Amino acid sequence: MRALQTVAVLLCSAIPATADPLPSWNDTPTKTAIIEFVEKVTDPASDDFVAMEDRIATFDNDGTLWAEQPAYFQLFYALDKLKEKAAADPSILSSDVLKAANEGDMQGMMAKGEEGLIEILNISHSGMTVDQFMADSSNWLSTAAHPTTGMHYADMTYQPMVELLSYLRDEGFSTYIVSGGGVHFIRSFSDEAYGVPPENVVGTEGETKFEEVDGKFVLMKHGGVTFIDDKEGKPVGIDRHIGKRPIFVGGNSDGDFQMLQYATEAEGPTFGLIVHHTDGEREFAYDREGSIGVLDRGLDEADARGWVLVDMANDWSRIWSGKK
Amino acid sequence: MRALQTVAVLLCSAIPATADPLPSWNDTPTKTAIIEFVEKVTDPASDDFVAMEDRIATFDNDGTLWAEQPAYFQLFYALDKLKEKAAADPSILSSDVLKAANEGDMQGMMAKGEEGLIEILNISHSGMTVDQFMADSSNWLSTAAHPTTGMHYADMTYQPMVELLSYLRDEGFSTYIVSGGGVHFIRSFSDEAYGVPPENVVGTEGETKFEEVDGKFVLMKHGGVTFIDDKEGKPVGIDRHIGKRPIFVGGNSDGDFQMLQYATEAEGPTFGLIVHHTDGEREFAYDREGSIGVLDRGLDEADARGWVLVDMANDWSRIWSGKK
Repeated sequence: MRALQTVAVLLCSAIPATADPLPSWNDTPTKTAIIEFVEKVTDPASDDFVAMEDRIATFDNDGTLWAEQPAYFQLFYALDKLKEKAAADPSILSSDVLKAANEGDMQGMMAKGEEGLIEILNISHSGMTVDQFMADSSNWLSTAAHPTTGMHYADMTYQPMVELLSYLRDEGFSTYIVSGGGVHFIRSFSDEAYGVPPENVVGTEGETKFEEVDGKFVLMKHGGVTFIDDKEGKPVGIDRHIGKRPIFVGGNSDGDFQMLQYATEAEGPTFGLIVHHTDGEREFAYDREGSIGVLDRGLDEADARGWVLVDMANDWSRIWSGKK
Repeated sequence: MRALQTVAVLLCSAIPATADPLPSWNDTPTKTAIIEFVEKVTDPASDDFVAMEDRIATFDNDGTLWAEQPAYFQLFYALDKLKEKAAADPSILSSDVLKAANEGDMQGMMAKGEEGLIEILNISHSGMTVDQFMADSSNWLSTAAHPTTGMHYADMTYQPMVELLSYLRDEGFSTYIVSGGGVHFIRSFSDEAYGVPPENVVGTEGETKFEEVDGKFVLMKHGGVTFIDDKEGKPVGIDRHIGKRPIFVGGNSDGDFQMLQYATEAEGPTFGLIVHHTDGEREFAYDREGSIGVLDRGLDEADARGWVLVDMANDWSRIWSGKK
């Protein structure tokens, strides 16, 4: 008995009491602020203690948990699928936008704006079951190469954010993704990449129908958009899926403004975090201008609202989870 | 040390190894079938073992977890609210259906069918924030009296089903409600009544908007229906919210047919349960006919599909969770 106790004591003391939960974060005020917040809401003796079931953390995906330049990864996926389908059946190229997209003519592809992009997404995200779609996108993410880094898309998640998600879960938080990206696209890699299971992914939704195909009932993707989980849609998506107000929110663009506002305007302790893309060498530098991930109002108001800006260049010692 | 160990042994042996997890279920083949299923999917040595993260259980609410006669409880709530609002402002009674509903004229109220009912629901489920609505419906459920039993609605949950939900959770299942009822209405009592928290409730959804009211951003309910979580909508709702196929499904009417089908047509061990309302003395007896909770196709096909019919009169020793 004595021997067993000794072993137990030795085992416990082998775990360092001060293990760094965020090893890829530099020791800056940003890291300190995150840890101080987590410690105060998880300390039962603190006035700011929050019960475990209310420790809800929501994160945007594109530009917050993985990269989003030079365009959303889901768009690259859609273009690859479009070309694949067009090679098998050229008659699907029924509009100028689709023809331009198939030929890699970016200007022609963008000529009709968002409407044209939805046309491309519809072609590539319909006519298959949910299971087929997810298997295909999962495979694509770990085999196709990003146009500028040459990395697999699945490797372009941010290591510091993966650590943050894990740290929050270790401290009793439930971590959710709340993204403008498609819910099935994100679910196809979120569990493996972030430890976020399917039921914790909220995203933009297309028409899905339960119907008979070849004598079997399946969930078929039909294209079209039934819910856009972006801007003021994010608090609505959070309410639909979670039904609780998050106390920790991470985003990177003005598309996350309302989600941050929803959480941090509430009573009680909250933490709003904005990933600011300041690192043109290791990642991509952008904020107020462009067509992807614009951060303008958020940059103006972050200070007054108490939102913490993550300076990627200075706050992160490492960017990518995967190998470059 | 020795004394402490003795105390620990005594404490442990005080918990009976064979405590009945379903005390309000009679010892019938139904109870045996449930327990056998749960034991085989949770036994790591079994060929039918299912990992904890895939132990998803989904349950209909009306007629499965609580009563639904002589009409859905949410409709009684809507009628009470309509009368309350009309007393303050009679001009809201802008149609024959609304006037009939306000006067308790059931025939006039039903004259326009589902369209008329949605008109009533819209009036009573809009013009307030999500938080206000849930506080009000929660209060109503524990104060208003059911027209035939005289019980509070919140007391009319089925004790055997409450035990089943709890048993499944104890065995590592995640329990969800997947109901044709409104998601906010159900969330206002599901945690207290069933131990099912807001994030595990899937239901019919109305228009909700994130907007400024008196200088504050809130989630406002606007009426209208954006998603109907019934029939073939149930597998779609499960996919949207959970993204995993359930292995245990409970329902009571043909509105649950597709949810049962979705789960039990899949590979691997599954359990389909149908609550059959056979007890006219203690509850309400109905199945193939009527306008609420019709069970016709399910009754015809249950046997061939291996779905277990719960005979309320014989399988349950107690009906209500609350006091009659």
